Amino acid sequence: MQAAEHDDPTDIKRASTSVPILDVLADRWSPRAWQDRPVEDEKLLRMFEAARWAASSGNEQSWRFLLARRHFDESWEDALACLVEGNREWAQAAPVLVLTAAATETRRGRPYKHAWHDLGLAMGNLSAQATADGLHVHQMGGILPDEARGRFNVPDDFDIVTAVTIGYLGDPASLSERRRESELAPRSRRPLQETLFTGTWNTESPILK
Amino acid sequence: MQAAEHDDPTDIKRASTSVPILDVLADRWSPRAWQDRPVEDEKLLRMFEAARWAASSGNEQSWRFLLARRHFDESWEDALACLVEGNREWAQAAPVLVLTAAATETRRGRPYKHAWHDLGLAMGNLSAQATADGLHVHQMGGILPDEARGRFNVPDDFDIVTAVTIGYLGDPASLSERRRESELAPRSRRPLQETLFTGTWNTESPILK
Repeated sequence: MQAAEHDDPTDIKRASTSVPILDVLADRWSPRAWQDRPVEDEKLLRMFEAARWAASSGNEQSWRFLLARRHFDESWEDALACLVEGNREWAQAAPVLVLTAAATETRRGRPYKHAWHDLGLAMGNLSAQATADGLHVHQMGGILPDEARGRFNVPDDFDIVTAVTIGYLGDPASLSERRRESELAPRSRRPLQETLFTGTWNTESPILK
Repeated sequence: MQAAEHDDPTDIKRASTSVPILDVLADRWSPRAWQDRPVEDEKLLRMFEAARWAASSGNEQSWRFLLARRHFDESWEDALACLVEGNREWAQAAPVLVLTAAATETRRGRPYKHAWHDLGLAMGNLSAQATADGLHVHQMGGILPDEARGRFNVPDDFDIVTAVTIGYLGDPASLSERRRESELAPRSRRPLQETLFTGTWNTESPILK
């Protein structure tokens, strides 16, 4: 089947894994087309509850979240203004936008070296829960942190790390031609042979042989 | 039931969530007691395959892994030597130890700002897959990066971020008294009211009301 014939890119987007992995991980991908349909509060709550129970260095829980729902929250435009233009273009059609932040210091006032890493752990949980609930998540590094700090009064001891759209998968036809191509292209990853080593760097692990 | 009467802390460790979340997220926790039982290569492969399909900024895939299996790999002692002493004490009984690393630059040679965050996303996937396969994972920030760089020839354009033990849950009685207490204590997290905001920082989101 030609990619261009897909209305729903779900099949082509499923990870082509070398061994079976959990559906909630294989089916996760980052779309740009969204249905104009609010996300149920109950599902949002489950996502943030999932994030809440992630592991973190010394249980510091670096993560904080600013949530804006397009259909309900006055802060929607402020949240959207925190994205670089190229992301704003498609993200404005999503029903939910989240800004993520990470503590720069531990509770004892020391530098929190793993803060961004630990936020990533929480977002991994959030993404798995969202996928289980039939939702998609698109995380973006392309943001304007100073806009976010000013508009949402983010204190100096937090970094603003990403913006995240969440919603139900939409029709790729709603996207510009360039975006649509990417929406319908298969996902790709570096092979494990270049990622997983044993003994010394760049030496293939025996479990791959 | 008293915590001290548990041989298997699994029940007490399950996250007490305010709303239901995926079992592979609620059941994940970071033990220090391990069975002396190797982890099947097939399960290790699934974990790293799960990590491989995480999201990352511009699909940069910051993550690299150095795997050492206690029963099989000569590099086991080198891996163990990369932990701070307090972690080495209990981690030496685990069957698997992984050092994680994150690229400091993108493929185009620019600073890779989200590298640690994206490694966290991959580790979130790995942890969920491990939990699904009946395994436990304990990630540690308490490592000696210089030891790791020297012993495993890690290039300068990678940060060494964490060490991770993986295995089957062991008997808490094998731990020192202080460690055993923590092994049998319920897990705790900051409430969502202090984590999830809408409109401005520290303002509780309406979805929590």
